[in-house]
Amino acid sequence: MATVEWDQAEGALRLIDQTRLPQAEVYLTCRTSAEVARAIREMVVRGAPAIGAAAAYGAALAARAGTLEPGAAELRAARPTARDLFAGVERVEAAFLRGGAEAALEEAHAIARGSVEECRRIGAHGAGLVPPDARILTICNTGALATVDYGTALGVVRTAHGAGKNPFVYVMETRPRAQGARLTTWELRRLGIPHQLIADSAAGLLLQRGMADLALAGADRVCANGDVVNKVGTYPLAVLCREHRVPFYVAAPSSTRDQGTPTGADVQIEERAASEVTTFAPPGTEAWNPAFDVTPAELVTALITERGVLQEAGAWRA
Amino acid sequence: MATVEWDQAEGALRLIDQTRLPQAEVYLTCRTSAEVARAIREMVVRGAPAIGAAAAYGAALAARAGTLEPGAAELRAARPTARDLFAGVERVEAAFLRGGAEAALEEAHAIARGSVEECRRIGAHGAGLVPPDARILTICNTGALATVDYGTALGVVRTAHGAGKNPFVYVMETRPRAQGARLTTWELRRLGIPHQLIADSAAGLLLQRGMADLALAGADRVCANGDVVNKVGTYPLAVLCREHRVPFYVAAPSSTRDQGTPTGADVQIEERAASEVTTFAPPGTEAWNPAFDVTPAELVTALITERGVLQEAGAWRA
Repeated sequence: MATVEWDQAEGALRLIDQTRLPQAEVYLTCRTSAEVARAIREMVVRGAPAIGAAAAYGAALAARAGTLEPGAAELRAARPTARDLFAGVERVEAAFLRGGAEAALEEAHAIARGSVEECRRIGAHGAGLVPPDARILTICNTGALATVDYGTALGVVRTAHGAGKNPFVYVMETRPRAQGARLTTWELRRLGIPHQLIADSAAGLLLQRGMADLALAGADRVCANGDVVNKVGTYPLAVLCREHRVPFYVAAPSSTRDQGTPTGADVQIEERAASEVTTFAPPGTEAWNPAFDVTPAELVTALITERGVLQEAGAWRA
Repeated sequence: MATVEWDQAEGALRLIDQTRLPQAEVYLTCRTSAEVARAIREMVVRGAPAIGAAAAYGAALAARAGTLEPGAAELRAARPTARDLFAGVERVEAAFLRGGAEAALEEAHAIARGSVEECRRIGAHGAGLVPPDARILTICNTGALATVDYGTALGVVRTAHGAGKNPFVYVMETRPRAQGARLTTWELRRLGIPHQLIADSAAGLLLQRGMADLALAGADRVCANGDVVNKVGTYPLAVLCREHRVPFYVAAPSSTRDQGTPTGADVQIEERAASEVTTFAPPGTEAWNPAFDVTPAELVTALITERGVLQEAGAWRA
């Protein structure tokens, strides 16, 4: 299984179609930056680091076609929140200016390889925070499917599991798109890591009952002040964790930090189609569907990056 | 539309099948207490006051069949959490001892009529707490479908709407069974009350952004100390409301108060089938599926009952 993979023979980007999982394991080949942009918009590929690498390859495809400027613009417009998307496109643009289309593709490869390496380091740093037999609460999908490979928050679980720490994972469903139910359970089963699915709303009782030792989330953007923008539902989870004095960790590569965004209030929160929420509702029901929310820095016990474990000023100490 | 209705001609209980809504409006006729118990177990009828009235009629059917004792036991075992179920069966049993099967049925009628009257009074008391143009956040279904008629928390919205206060309702989906998405939206549309559906996890961002003026929930049981047992997700909502200084009101008939249950820690929380949660998950995924949670009394701004608006000692004041 490869989330984001360059197909050398085809000269194209190969993505596992995450909208089809877990029912079907289908791959999509993108030959143009427009096809990559569409795959990002439609969430064929999702998860901040995976989007970043896919966008980088999309920009490299645009560079090869001689359409880097409009291609990059379309990629940037695909989804507004994840920092990695913008960073990926920017790095490929800079490489193109230095060395043309070939350098652009080399830079995309470097981003993809670097991303996997970062995830492994995040896993190693984060595993130190996981006690033996830890019961870990997670939201959304932060595994290999959210990255080029290995995962961020789920990479921490994976490393802890590999080190014999015997973690157990409570997987929040993560409505409306159910990335927890569809993708995280699928990954955990393949990895042989024991887990149970819960409704997002059950996290409160679970913490009330002392059933979790820590919570782990990813991040789409970390603001200059440490506020974390991540999947909608992360903020309520962080509030509940502080209420119950359960550590709430965010795992993300340090490139997720955006010094150009002072606080969470400055981030554009993507609002997606009502149809994602109206699954069970009568036809014609209106919905409000923000894809992300903002967790203030003081609710984050620590940030786990490839450089180490960082505690923000003002963060509560578990 | 009648949620719980005695069919005089058939001598049977008629229930709208809430598992089929909103796709189909289908009625189920229960001729025995066993059929009523099954309807409660399978959530054909749900919502504490509706369960209470249905169980009362179930006990009356058992009394008529000369099987009150085993019938009542089966009804009591149908679902463990809602106070009204036990109260309804108990009242019918007492009436039977006084006046036989006929008195038992009369008592069930009295419970059903009384429940509607209580709901209207709850609505009138609660509407006083609703400012003009209020944006109201709700969880689960607390309308006519959750009661014999009119509703508890949604009855408050209904009364405010009827009084020209122009309320707008944000409806939490309420996974896993989506009573908000399936039932509350269906009721609000019939009543002409404007509303939008949100994923349960979006309540955090909604409150963060100041988009709600108050939250309204029902209750399955209110403990002697004021702790509120209600649909799973109520507790996280109450925590978020306090975090954002948004009033969190609970609307329920005073019979929901159970002096025999000292605190929320003494309540048996029903755990339902994993299949309710695994909707989007790979086959074989395990799940933890508690149906309710406990909101400590101090998180409840006030309790709205048919007797008036009660503020518990220790409740935070909005």
